[in-house]
Amino acid sequence: MERIFNLNQHQLPTRWYNVLADLDRPLDPPLDPRTQEPLSPEALTALFAKTCVEQEVSTDRFIDIPPAVQDIYQLWRPTPVYRAVNLERALDTPAHIYYKYEGASPTGSHKTNTAVAQAYYNKIEGTKRLTTETGAGQWGSALSFACQALGIDLTVFMVKVSYEQKPYRKAMIELYGAEITPSPSQRTHAGRAVLAEDPDSPGSLGIAISEAIEEAMATGAKYSLGSVLNHVLLHQTVIGQEALAQMDLAGEYPDAVVGCVGGGSNFGGLMLPILYDSRNRGRQVEFIAAEPTACPTMTKGEVRYDFGDEAELTPLLRMHTLGHKFVPPPIHAGGLRYHGMAPIITRLVEDGVVQPVAFDQLEVFNDAVMFARAEGIIPAPETAHAVHAAVELARDCARRDEKKVILIGFSGHGHFDMSAYTAYLSGQLVSTR
Amino acid sequence: MERIFNLNQHQLPTRWYNVLADLDRPLDPPLDPRTQEPLSPEALTALFAKTCVEQEVSTDRFIDIPPAVQDIYQLWRPTPVYRAVNLERALDTPAHIYYKYEGASPTGSHKTNTAVAQAYYNKIEGTKRLTTETGAGQWGSALSFACQALGIDLTVFMVKVSYEQKPYRKAMIELYGAEITPSPSQRTHAGRAVLAEDPDSPGSLGIAISEAIEEAMATGAKYSLGSVLNHVLLHQTVIGQEALAQMDLAGEYPDAVVGCVGGGSNFGGLMLPILYDSRNRGRQVEFIAAEPTACPTMTKGEVRYDFGDEAELTPLLRMHTLGHKFVPPPIHAGGLRYHGMAPIITRLVEDGVVQPVAFDQLEVFNDAVMFARAEGIIPAPETAHAVHAAVELARDCARRDEKKVILIGFSGHGHFDMSAYTAYLSGQLVSTR
Repeated sequence: MERIFNLNQHQLPTRWYNVLADLDRPLDPPLDPRTQEPLSPEALTALFAKTCVEQEVSTDRFIDIPPAVQDIYQLWRPTPVYRAVNLERALDTPAHIYYKYEGASPTGSHKTNTAVAQAYYNKIEGTKRLTTETGAGQWGSALSFACQALGIDLTVFMVKVSYEQKPYRKAMIELYGAEITPSPSQRTHAGRAVLAEDPDSPGSLGIAISEAIEEAMATGAKYSLGSVLNHVLLHQTVIGQEALAQMDLAGEYPDAVVGCVGGGSNFGGLMLPILYDSRNRGRQVEFIAAEPTACPTMTKGEVRYDFGDEAELTPLLRMHTLGHKFVPPPIHAGGLRYHGMAPIITRLVEDGVVQPVAFDQLEVFNDAVMFARAEGIIPAPETAHAVHAAVELARDCARRDEKKVILIGFSGHGHFDMSAYTAYLSGQLVSTR
Repeated sequence: MERIFNLNQHQLPTRWYNVLADLDRPLDPPLDPRTQEPLSPEALTALFAKTCVEQEVSTDRFIDIPPAVQDIYQLWRPTPVYRAVNLERALDTPAHIYYKYEGASPTGSHKTNTAVAQAYYNKIEGTKRLTTETGAGQWGSALSFACQALGIDLTVFMVKVSYEQKPYRKAMIELYGAEITPSPSQRTHAGRAVLAEDPDSPGSLGIAISEAIEEAMATGAKYSLGSVLNHVLLHQTVIGQEALAQMDLAGEYPDAVVGCVGGGSNFGGLMLPILYDSRNRGRQVEFIAAEPTACPTMTKGEVRYDFGDEAELTPLLRMHTLGHKFVPPPIHAGGLRYHGMAPIITRLVEDGVVQPVAFDQLEVFNDAVMFARAEGIIPAPETAHAVHAAVELARDCARRDEKKVILIGFSGHGHFDMSAYTAYLSGQLVSTR
């Protein structure tokens, strides 16, 4: 039985797919919080690389991937698609389960796909230094890798509780040469304000974003965001394009595509090209977005304009939100602890294209352990949500004797999250339902 | 420029290569320590799977890989060969540097190749439970993965200092379902004897081997060793066979093959098939074995019969040894802290086929950081010794304007060893020269 579907280097996509070309009606624009008026692209270029801002609003269906970015992608791309034969056997299901393995990247997750692109555009536009935030650490390590590859300085504000609990992610960020500061910090007004109220604040992604943006604006650096925005999802579409070619190699077409969703970029990167392709072929595909019950942005949040950060420094985005002051419980899937959502994913949920589902971390880890024991690869806690969603589908197929082809967006491995597995295996993981 | 050389699943080797068929004179046999007489294979089957004991003395040049073992190998094999283009650029060298990436295995190192084979033979021979030891944790996690895949119980004695310092490796071993005990323990005579003398003993690989063997003998379990023995090197020869096919894809032939050496299995697995092939082609290849100056088994040890463990429970093997009571300094490359050597590698060093070299961990980490920054992938501290050896060769090529094709045995990634990089980057890593 074929288990691995590899593409060769020459099959690396040369263009990103831009879903903005194919939406029935345009997305609502970002608003300036002071005027409530649509924000001009120029206002955004104070913060982001000009090319990224252009991509944020472009309606070109395909955007060329610069050769220098392709060159760096080739350090690990194309990533493999695996068929989870042992998992199918363990579940005794007629379903065929495939997973697109983004854990193959140097930093172990899909985040490098946009990190390299953003660092590249900043480099050619003359940026000397970037700032960013990181929660679980996947984004911080991906951007530090990319900045190292392209010769840009980087300052990372790392949510303090992660900084203390994930010393290996911190080490990885430092190994790639970035400067790292626990957030909240004394470096920014936003950080000092939080510390004045609570000197022991564990921090949050919202606070760290505020600090990174403030520092960029105060020092003439640029800022880089690892999810949510249109151009970030755009850069991730290499995932779905490769996956389509690999499913073709396998002689199958996905009936269901499942991913985990924090800000929406890994899921979007996988499903958007498949949505485009399936519509062209007149095929029906289920797109299932898994989030934690502890941070139920799509399943319990409302859709409205909200800030992306805690200190209200970002533009207003129309999206699913739990409110920008929402502090989710400290579940192990740090990458899914975000109050907001990519406006593109929000739109697809509103349109009924994407089905959101929420899971408790206990059921998620139960299936993640089963997956690791069957397939060897250990899912990151975030990815474990996608795995659990797929396993639930496959169990349903077994009950109904239905052969369904399921494709999992496997966003990353869990090598830096083993303490979560220790907590689960020793019975210390709590339900947050 | 081509960077990745992937084989497809159908190119997975179906046979292991056995160098015992091609030695000019047979290896000296293991001796019974009580009688100093050659040990009968029967005596070894009390401890090891019968098929492994047969393979230990077989002189068949090729031994078929059982289909069930191939099936599990296909979860991650064939592993990629990468050309380190960015590293070549960073070194400004005319050398071409390739690396065979065994970090692609589920547990992140080459150890799974023999773990699966040993677990399989034990399974079909009726073994219900295995015991083993682990130092750095690579072997313990590999065997726990293999035992999980094949449905055998496993007890791992983990060197206490690693048990405490590497909670993520411990978590991985537990995730795959093995029982784990810090060594020295109260479970065995050997452990109790050590604790009676030093209740705070940090343990050593030699002590942990004693405990695992004693427990196997006392409970009717079998024992499994992750390096040194002939059959272990045999199982690793999938590495070198794949690498030859991949170098062929690259249109090159290695002039130099470098690996790190603790017990000798990853280096042997890579170089033995290439030695065989190069002799058939009449080609000269340098085989370079890198070890730490802190545990200079080949470069400073003597060749004589010695025990493999501290408590003198193993047969006597004729090998390079620093003495079985030798306790190496606590360097970060835990997998290279072993007093002995594979008898096969000892013979090749004696015959001048393999050149041993020893490096201090400071120079090793310096080049490992350079490698990670250039190529993205982070070498395990053990692997970093091979990387450093290759970088030294490539620097020499630059000085002499010589185009040499260098193939590195990249035994594993460093995701579970990030504290070593933190120590290096913060200037806390000490020279042990």
